[in-house]
Amino acid sequence: MHTIENLQLNSQGKLQHFLSIEGLDKSLLTEILDTAESFAYISEQQVKKFPLLRGKTIVNLFFENSTRTRATFELAATRLSADVLSMNIATSATSKGESLLDTIRNLEAMQVDMFVVRHSLSGAAHFIAQHAAPHISVINAGDGRHEHPTQAMLDMFTIRRAKQQFSGLRVAIVGDILHSRVARSQIHALSILGAEEVRVIAPKTLLPAEVESLGVSVYHNLAAGLKNIDVIIMLRLQKERMNSALLPSESEYFKCFGLSNDKLTIANKDAIVMHPGPINRGVEISSSVADGPQSVILQQVTNGIAVRMAVMSMVMRRKTGTE
Amino acid sequence: MHTIENLQLNSQGKLQHFLSIEGLDKSLLTEILDTAESFAYISEQQVKKFPLLRGKTIVNLFFENSTRTRATFELAATRLSADVLSMNIATSATSKGESLLDTIRNLEAMQVDMFVVRHSLSGAAHFIAQHAAPHISVINAGDGRHEHPTQAMLDMFTIRRAKQQFSGLRVAIVGDILHSRVARSQIHALSILGAEEVRVIAPKTLLPAEVESLGVSVYHNLAAGLKNIDVIIMLRLQKERMNSALLPSESEYFKCFGLSNDKLTIANKDAIVMHPGPINRGVEISSSVADGPQSVILQQVTNGIAVRMAVMSMVMRRKTGTE
Amino acid sequence: MHTIENLQLNSQGKLQHFLSIEGLDKSLLTEILDTAESFAYISEQQVKKFPLLRGKTIVNLFFENSTRTRATFELAATRLSADVLSMNIATSATSKGESLLDTIRNLEAMQVDMFVVRHSLSGAAHFIAQHAAPHISVINAGDGRHEHPTQAMLDMFTIRRAKQQFSGLRVAIVGDILHSRVARSQIHALSILGAEEVRVIAPKTLLPAEVESLGVSVYHNLAAGLKNIDVIIMLRLQKERMNSALLPSESEYFKCFGLSNDKLTIANKDAIVMHPGPINRGVEISSSVADGPQSVILQQVTNGIAVRMAVMSMVMRRKTGTE
Repeated sequence: MHTIENLQLNSQGKLQHFLSIEGLDKSLLTEILDTAESFAYISEQQVKKFPLLRGKTIVNLFFENSTRTRATFELAATRLSADVLSMNIATSATSKGESLLDTIRNLEAMQVDMFVVRHSLSGAAHFIAQHAAPHISVINAGDGRHEHPTQAMLDMFTIRRAKQQFSGLRVAIVGDILHSRVARSQIHALSILGAEEVRVIAPKTLLPAEVESLGVSVYHNLAAGLKNIDVIIMLRLQKERMNSALLPSESEYFKCFGLSNDKLTIANKDAIVMHPGPINRGVEISSSVADGPQSVILQQVTNGIAVRMAVMSMVMRRKTGTE
Repeated sequence: MHTIENLQLNSQGKLQHFLSIEGLDKSLLTEILDTAESFAYISEQQVKKFPLLRGKTIVNLFFENSTRTRATFELAATRLSADVLSMNIATSATSKGESLLDTIRNLEAMQVDMFVVRHSLSGAAHFIAQHAAPHISVINAGDGRHEHPTQAMLDMFTIRRAKQQFSGLRVAIVGDILHSRVARSQIHALSILGAEEVRVIAPKTLLPAEVESLGVSVYHNLAAGLKNIDVIIMLRLQKERMNSALLPSESEYFKCFGLSNDKLTIANKDAIVMHPGPINRGVEISSSVADGPQSVILQQVTNGIAVRMAVMSMVMRRKTGTE
Repeated sequence: MHTIENLQLNSQGKLQHFLSIEGLDKSLLTEILDTAESFAYISEQQVKKFPLLRGKTIVNLFFENSTRTRATFELAATRLSADVLSMNIATSATSKGESLLDTIRNLEAMQVDMFVVRHSLSGAAHFIAQHAAPHISVINAGDGRHEHPTQAMLDMFTIRRAKQQFSGLRVAIVGDILHSRVARSQIHALSILGAEEVRVIAPKTLLPAEVESLGVSVYHNLAAGLKNIDVIIMLRLQKERMNSALLPSESEYFKCFGLSNDKLTIANKDAIVMHPGPINRGVEISSSVADGPQSVILQQVTNGIAVRMAVMSMVMRRKTGTE
């Protein structure tokens, strides 16, 4: 059994899978950001097409529905000229009683090259990477409450474009930390890349028990938490949480933890506002902030394509022989 | 806010969006028909592939299901070498509570180039075109009861191929005018292209109140309406209308407004018979007419690909730099 | 009306459709296997892409859901550079009340080149081939209880790779022969290719009445049937059969007709074990056999791509002008 650390890297220390931010080092994260810069440049051209993965087959293995994430991975793969096979597993093979491992073995036998995996169980992408044939690369597109590493890297890319460097940066992550795989990946990435401080701001009911062990400072008051902040990352509030015992009401939540123009002025003047989308206007963020001059929410979406192209090309590098 | 007229055209008078026939002039409609002729020629070749939109991303944004229309747009885009992203919106992002405008903004941020929009609300494609970023083109693939302009243009293309010109032509549109976006677009197109006369033939319950204002003559009797007619356009009768108070029964409808061989002989000898499909055999048209020598129903389908290729290439022209 | 035999072949005796093994001769089946060998070689390359069907449109016409078969046909078509249009017919056009024949006519009018048909009714692919336009090729991807010819040919390919030749081979097909279109196709193929003996091993309730007329020997006892056998083909047991009156219980079935390591030792030492998938572990086959050294189950999946590429390229040959 591999450890998480070396499972992602091959014997030359190159990325073979992309499963979690945890376990990667600063130089590798920086390599992803630098590679994404070159793909961002391509995507601004007339012809957004690059033959790097021509003849490769990428399987979108989504055990959990996600239109937006699937679309960005599909576009990233298509713009690298790969062939994409979309499998909505909830409604297909496993319904014939086939085990996950048999599904994987069969797809491998079809000589595919990469799995992009989304699953509601933490560790699913790791499990698949552990058992996949050596020629396969696995990218984690979100597993349970564990990690969503490409989302974190597109956030880092967006931050670096706006702020040039991580040293000295104070970042606040606001909202449902407890259920957020995005938050976990962001905290790891900010720490590895050398951010000055990462704060989490949330009601007690939406914080995991051991959160301080991740090296963050904890705030239960939005105004206090936003002081001297350079980057504000709002998290999406799942509707299903709102109806549960964890929260009072939407309007109550917005009053306490929603980002309004008033609250935004507490942060540094040039602070940027981020959100992984889709946003709930008037719940975790006001429309005036989401659409305002400090918001980089749509840049995040654009950058998501470049970052996914970067990761896909890097895990395939040993196979395409470009390195 | 743009008016409908100039929203479709850019400052050089070139097509930027294709939303409605209303508001376009004869030279532009003729340009579409002429461009479609060259694509029709390509589609008859061994290799039906043309690199014009290589590296472009076209999003099929279908808020209303339509297998056939979606298939023809997908084939048209694929044969122009574009990448196609299919979004079935009814079952996806908006179900997470995201607004239409946020969905559009996010797709734009993915650096897509064109939206093909089908929506049950009249004006949906206009709304999207009004709010879309300048680099985006929108094509209306049917909006509520309003327009279905590519369907009308493939009909015009089919008529021109059979009859060479529009001047002097007498055209009858038969059936459910009230609920038909196709009929509205056809009436506009025939009028702009200079047809001699356009008749609508329908029971009173299936005619809109203001129909004469569109410049058509109205008939409630099929036999009377078919006299001296060169082109007969049958409309599809939606099953849901038949069960409503608007109509007596299927067989009653066929007796009065269905096109049988007998009725067909009333029209001019070389009249052609059209239908947008899918046809209800024995309801609005008999099988012997639908499959008979005067029917051009399947040519309409073939021409639909060429016309959609033409419109797609024209709205992208300013971007591909071919003009 | 064509007979089954000549419907598949054009006037030069070349494959126009691929509907059933029955009616084809040894030289044609051998040509398929030889062509598949060359595609198997391609699929092992870095770039698994071949421009043979560039600009051709292949329609996956699945009236019955099958993730795995559809995926392999889609991959085969994509690796031949064809454009693929996937139609899930159960949920689309025919739900608007359109007849199968009208659906076919409309797709033909879109200038597509090939239909890959899966249908729950025996004879559906033949029906479509009989009525299709001359430029269309039809491939049967499984019709009712009738045939599944590409599955049989990938099995023959797998056998030939393992055993070099068919003469002298003794093959046992084990399980639900009654409901299996795969078994019917396999029996025809093995007979045409000259296998020494084909045995079917099944409880009486899972055997068709006229089975001996296919030229097989019948066994109701697994141990007796496996003696001197070179190739064991296990069939999938449909869960819905198990709950019916036809069978006692899963564990009872496994005890009598499941392939365990013990049973496997009865066959020849170098016997290979096959299964069309997806397997029911512990029902028709034990995990130790399915994953053991004599199993070629995953090779079957790999070979399925090459065989489907071979058949697709052969039926299109007259159109691509490569012969």
